Amino acid sequence: MTTQKSTNIILFSGDYDKAMAAYIIANGAAAYDHKVTIFHTFWGLNALRKDEHVAVKKGFLEKMFSKMMPRGADQMTLSKMNMAGMGPKMIKKVMKKHNALSLPQLIEMAQDQEIHLVACTMTMDLLGLKKEELLDTVELAGVAAYLAGAEEGNVNLFI
Amino acid sequence: MTTQKSTNIILFSGDYDKAMAAYIIANGAAAYDHKVTIFHTFWGLNALRKDEHVAVKKGFLEKMFSKMMPRGADQMTLSKMNMAGMGPKMIKKVMKKHNALSLPQLIEMAQDQEIHLVACTMTMDLLGLKKEELLDTVELAGVAAYLAGAEEGNVNLFI
Amino acid sequence: MTTQKSTNIILFSGDYDKAMAAYIIANGAAAYDHKVTIFHTFWGLNALRKDEHVAVKKGFLEKMFSKMMPRGADQMTLSKMNMAGMGPKMIKKVMKKHNALSLPQLIEMAQDQEIHLVACTMTMDLLGLKKEELLDTVELAGVAAYLAGAEEGNVNLFI
Repeated sequence: MTTQKSTNIILFSGDYDKAMAAYIIANGAAAYDHKVTIFHTFWGLNALRKDEHVAVKKGFLEKMFSKMMPRGADQMTLSKMNMAGMGPKMIKKVMKKHNALSLPQLIEMAQDQEIHLVACTMTMDLLGLKKEELLDTVELAGVAAYLAGAEEGNVNLFI
Repeated sequence: MTTQKSTNIILFSGDYDKAMAAYIIANGAAAYDHKVTIFHTFWGLNALRKDEHVAVKKGFLEKMFSKMMPRGADQMTLSKMNMAGMGPKMIKKVMKKHNALSLPQLIEMAQDQEIHLVACTMTMDLLGLKKEELLDTVELAGVAAYLAGAEEGNVNLFI
Repeated sequence: MTTQKSTNIILFSGDYDKAMAAYIIANGAAAYDHKVTIFHTFWGLNALRKDEHVAVKKGFLEKMFSKMMPRGADQMTLSKMNMAGMGPKMIKKVMKKHNALSLPQLIEMAQDQEIHLVACTMTMDLLGLKKEELLDTVELAGVAAYLAGAEEGNVNLFI
């Protein structure tokens, strides 16, 4: 029996460096012919936001969350040594120098490799994020869909 | 052979949002008929603390840790945008509005679904937490017990 | 068929307490006869740094990162209640009192148990860390090697 292997990553974190780790592992696993899913929940949803403003109707609290959260992968901050934004600049500079892919490039590569980019509907609701604000290839699903995949998965990670 | 699937979550984090994620996944997996264990270690132990003061004898350092750590799930803070306590208030308000379960309610549901809520004895010792301070249904165990479960597990996560 | 079980931990975090958790689980799994690998990436690489200064040639940004990051396990800080260095001191004091192993001791035990301590070459490059700066038993590898192990693994964790 040769079933396809699978990698299922929950991306909870909204940190640039943690999201990078998630997308590097995901792209690696896809190159290895795994079926790969990244399930974005809570702050991890920010990696999927379009970087332009999208006009949607929101309640007051939801509007506040949207305003305060980074709009898209490129705006995210570091989990360590953020230093008021200096850290991400340093990391991006050093990445360019070493020809490492940036987070937005890693996400594009994931889309090219047909990695399933899933947004958690429950937390979208909580944080007031609408489908229109997220990248067009994003799929919407809940924890049940995540579990259905992960219970057959080979590499399951919470990041 | 139809063995029961299993989900084994290590809850290391003492953040309200991360604990919510852990308990949402755990309750989902239990609904899917998994055998589910949440192994609480380090700051994750705080989710299991009773919210009232329990009189127990402690050394000085242990007393300091107990004082400084949140007493129970409802007192925990956010991993992001905590904003001196404003963040948890906003999240709780928005959760109520969307009829989402609060963390204490998710823990109750876990108890109802017979999810194994385990407290790590080694870190209880380090942080000076006594059995009497934790919820009554909590089981005590060490890393060996965790591994015995996880090595047969389907969904293993560190949160 | 009695294949050896395996535990594969990605240590992304540079926090003393999270690294402790990683090494406690790893040592436990090795005692259970698992093949164990800890793949150190991003800030987790700091756990593998020698505590003395090693003279190597670096670019400006890489030099800054090296300077600002903790040199070795004993210099790492806590994920919670760090309190400008007070937290780690309290934890270490309480650990000594309870005869718990310190992080450097846990790393030594891991080496004795032949746990594979792997450093991620890509992030070493980004953070400007050279092989000479890391513990002598460290193996160098990339995400492909991690995945080759983890896809057959029993306990896979991202810490």
